[in-house]
Amino acid sequence: QRLRALFQYKPQNIDELMINAGDFIYVDPTHQCDVSEGWVVGTSHRTGCRGFLPENYTEKAHESDTWVKHREYVFVTASRSSTQTEREYNVKLNGEAHNPSMSRSGANVLSTQNAPLRRAVLVMRHGERVDQVFGKSWLQQCLTPDGKYYRADLNFPSALPKRKDSMKQFECDPPLSCCGIFQSRLIGEALLDQEVLVSYVYSSPALRCVQTAQHVLQGLELNQKVKIRVEPGLFEWTKWEASKVIPNFMTVAELAEASYNVDTSYRGNFPLSSLVPSESYEDYLSRSSAPLLLLFAFSGVSGVILIVGHGSSLAACTRPLMGLPSRDSSDFAQMVRKIPSLGMCFCEELKEQNKWQMVNPPVKTLTHGANAAFNWRYTIMED
Amino acid sequence: QRLRALFQYKPQNIDELMINAGDFIYVDPTHQCDVSEGWVVGTSHRTGCRGFLPENYTEKAHESDTWVKHREYVFVTASRSSTQTEREYNVKLNGEAHNPSMSRSGANVLSTQNAPLRRAVLVMRHGERVDQVFGKSWLQQCLTPDGKYYRADLNFPSALPKRKDSMKQFECDPPLSCCGIFQSRLIGEALLDQEVLVSYVYSSPALRCVQTAQHVLQGLELNQKVKIRVEPGLFEWTKWEASKVIPNFMTVAELAEASYNVDTSYRGNFPLSSLVPSESYEDYLSRSSAPLLLLFAFSGVSGVILIVGHGSSLAACTRPLMGLPSRDSSDFAQMVRKIPSLGMCFCEELKEQNKWQMVNPPVKTLTHGANAAFNWRYTIMED
Repeated sequence: QRLRALFQYKPQNIDELMINAGDFIYVDPTHQCDVSEGWVVGTSHRTGCRGFLPENYTEKAHESDTWVKHREYVFVTASRSSTQTEREYNVKLNGEAHNPSMSRSGANVLSTQNAPLRRAVLVMRHGERVDQVFGKSWLQQCLTPDGKYYRADLNFPSALPKRKDSMKQFECDPPLSCCGIFQSRLIGEALLDQEVLVSYVYSSPALRCVQTAQHVLQGLELNQKVKIRVEPGLFEWTKWEASKVIPNFMTVAELAEASYNVDTSYRGNFPLSSLVPSESYEDYLSRSSAPLLLLFAFSGVSGVILIVGHGSSLAACTRPLMGLPSRDSSDFAQMVRKIPSLGMCFCEELKEQNKWQMVNPPVKTLTHGANAAFNWRYTIMED
Repeated sequence: QRLRALFQYKPQNIDELMINAGDFIYVDPTHQCDVSEGWVVGTSHRTGCRGFLPENYTEKAHESDTWVKHREYVFVTASRSSTQTEREYNVKLNGEAHNPSMSRSGANVLSTQNAPLRRAVLVMRHGERVDQVFGKSWLQQCLTPDGKYYRADLNFPSALPKRKDSMKQFECDPPLSCCGIFQSRLIGEALLDQEVLVSYVYSSPALRCVQTAQHVLQGLELNQKVKIRVEPGLFEWTKWEASKVIPNFMTVAELAEASYNVDTSYRGNFPLSSLVPSESYEDYLSRSSAPLLLLFAFSGVSGVILIVGHGSSLAACTRPLMGLPSRDSSDFAQMVRKIPSLGMCFCEELKEQNKWQMVNPPVKTLTHGANAAFNWRYTIMED
């Protein structure tokens, strides 16, 4: 049987098939025996990948359509049986069997009061940083000759937090841009919409990460309830620090004074003084995953643990949890470059099987365009 | 005398010089007689341009530095005498003679209760639209098979306004993205910070423009006080409409029902029924400037008139006001392409001289980066 996709479907689980409107999908009737209502297993003509797809996103294709290639796709991480159970569970919960794509997020499970709280980790990269937009000289661009901060472009934050040492220290530890605050807030609000129950928040000591955590918690309306634990072990691989020194981070006391919602009683798992410049890849990986592995050793910990770190944190914090080997360090660098602001990954524990699997985060991606500077003089006035 | 710039200085008025840190500036002592305290007239070695610059942004250069070129720059629009008066006025108002760059915005003048309200026009382009990020098929991406809207990416708005005809009409008249709402709100808040007194708001009938006006007014905390006048004459040059038809805009009644703050009693200067597909360039220009020219014929109109339109509006609404000729239509297209979301220009009336001049808008530019979609599966999981 051949189907033609009517709509785009973005996979919500690792065993599902990405389809675009117009794609042809080959469906073998002998493979459909243990598939739940409304779903089929198919192979995409375009990609050659195989997976589950919602039947009502497709129509029967004309028999005249040609077929060239199809190959098998092996699922490595997710076991069939567990996700099958989860699908039925979600569909029942929502009573929306007509639209399976709306009822597949892990958050629905987490938010159900009767279900036991599954343990999960949401790892995210910080929001847009000012130097990402305005370059290395960003601080020079927004300081007056007598050293006062002013907002040279509306994407600079309206003020910089107070710190005891020099403003110059912000150069190695830049804050979020206004757009970065917007991104963080939006993700927090989306997590609230999905009723994701965040029980702990850990942040890299970098200001941009603490700020991201702060605005995500505000969006979640949790800023009075959950405090940010500043964990030096979550800082970026120091080999990548352009300055070749460890930045002078704002202290937890300074952050608290600047109204950041930090846990002043938390003592880092990895002390700040142990962060050394140009550390080895192995040292970086081991300090990145240690806080989480330690935390999950306590069975009392439940709900979603939010980790706000750097692009590198997405892999460094989660792969050890899933028992996956670390990547080659050059592949690692290439991977990290692809991770946008507020890029996220989500791991949940399968307690009965004593393992962790990566599934879709409880909220969607955030994709937006750039906005260029604009000079009316050269554009509107001059001919 | 030769100066070296210590800091970047971005011009705040048409007669000022753009300098970057490290630039050399040639200063002729015989040209400094009618220059106010703290300012010098100089010629940039780098650009060859001449203009005013704040002296405390520079230091004396070493005599050994070489000089190759300098040319004269003729100021066409701004007359020396008027801006000179304005500068002194502003500096006095703020008492910040040490930092002239902070006290140059026209808004300071406008916000002074004792000064007569100068008439000015702020023309802005709408914010980021969904199809700019997600392409022409954006609506297909966020409709379920049974035609319900869902937020396929967090940059899609949380809901679409209700309209009486089909959702399909949004395809020719797309809404703002979440990022577009953020941009509009930010500009509104910045205008409030500068105490810009907006007395009238005119918007193109395109949904993205009405939404931009709405969020700018919210940022200005004026949404209860100033109503949006939907003016069909402000719509984009219809020759540029990809669909070759006039979109079915939401009616003013529908907009009001969807909680947009529109003036239901306003009758457009240019009736919607007169908008025709593929109109001539001349017809487009004449309908774009007519509403403003008519408005300013009434001497009772004062304060800042906000116009929310399209990239094309920035030139089409302002050049006739300043008595400038229209551009060649191909130059016009090229100019419009350069205008970012919320790109702005600002014209103020010099009543005593019975003319209008373009000066820096009362708020800064808004520059931010793009955020790409991200798939954890291909990035974090696969090797």
